[in-house]
Order: sequence, then C-alpha cells, then structure tokens
Amino acid sequence: MRELKGIFVHHVFFWLDKKDNKEDLSKLIEGLQKLSKVKTIKQFHIGKPAATNRDVIERSYDISWFVLFENAADQESYQVDPIHLKFVEDCSHLWKKVVVHDSIDA
Amino acid sequence: MRELKGIFVHHVFFWLDKKDNKEDLSKLIEGLQKLSKVKTIKQFHIGKPAATNRDVIERSYDISWFVLFENAADQESYQVDPIHLKFVEDCSHLWKKVVVHDSIDA
Repeated sequence: MRELKGIFVHHVFFWLDKKDNKEDLSKLIEGLQKLSKVKTIKQFHIGKPAATNRDVIERSYDISWFVLFENAADQESYQVDPIHLKFVEDCSHLWKKVVVHDSIDA
Repeated sequence: MRELKGIFVHHVFFWLDKKDNKEDLSKLIEGLQKLSKVKTIKQFHIGKPAATNRDVIERSYDISWFVLFENAADQESYQVDPIHLKFVEDCSHLWKKVVVHDSIDA
C-alpha cells in the first residue's frame, strides 16, 4: 500500500544527554531494538539525521524512533507495555530531551 | 518487513499561516495528494495530530507529511521534481512554518 491510511504514526526524536558519546548512542539503539519487540508495533525504523542540510531541516537530534501502529489503542497499550516500561527504566538517563509526534489520517 | 532498513525517512510538519482555516487546510491536503504522485515516493502518510497529549508531545503543527524513499538519491530527485516545485509554488503561501526531519539507518 503506497498511501498509508487508517494507521497511527508515532515518531520520536531523542537528544542524548552526552552529545557525541558513542557508548550512550549504542546503548540507546540497543534499548530501541529491545523495545521493538512490543507486539503491537507494525513497522519501525531506528534512524539518525541524514546528510541533508537546509534551513528548514531539524538535524540536531541524535536518534529517530519511528513506529507505525494499527490504531490509537495499540499505541496506548504500547505505552504501558512492560517492555516499554523497562526501556524507559533502562534508557531514560541517556537522553536530555525527547519530542514525540503522534499523527493520524488528516 | 517489520524493521525498515536501508531506507530514507522524510518527515515534514507544517504550521498553517491561518491557523484553523479549514479551506487552507483542505488546500494543503489536496496539494500533498498531488505531490504524492512523485514516482520515487515509496510510501506516504498525510496526517494531523492525534488526540494524545503529554508534555513531550509536539502537537501544535497542522499537517504531518511522512514519506519513505528507497534512498537519499530518490529524496534529492524528489526535491527538484516538477511536481514538487509546483507544490511549493501552489501551496507555500499556506504555511508560516515548516520543519523537516530526514533520517537514515542509525
């Protein structure tokens, strides 16, 4: 399906507390790989800023965590899933800032 | 494929110049539907903020434009595609702010 419809888009950006610390970056990526095991996650991508660089591009974040859910209820259950709670417990000390974008069909 | 790998994630957020103007919102959505015809776009989603509301959630934008490309080159060609240039020409007066996030595999 080329146009994604009737889905729930959850896109999170993380800014590491220790910018450019490779160990912490690896720990966060490892944490997200574990987090990706949550059953209601339909698709996910663990990213970093691309090389593109224009005025309108936000590229100060360290990690992009993109997740597709079937619907809003699946995102809600993900928030309280033990795997998610463990991720927050294990990894939240790694970031100083996190920004979440939740979108549904316009 | 549950984990998206080896792709280029392009996620744009638009803030309308005339906030809450339904006509302009429709025009922007219509413009994005036309923009979605660009051949190199693998998948896309036209979104609006979900009902979720926590401190970390950015929900002040009006429209989310999420696009998956096969690679960085496809995103570059999209930027100069006549369909994209026409979209900017027809629709850029509708928004006051736009923020782009381009991500590749971490």
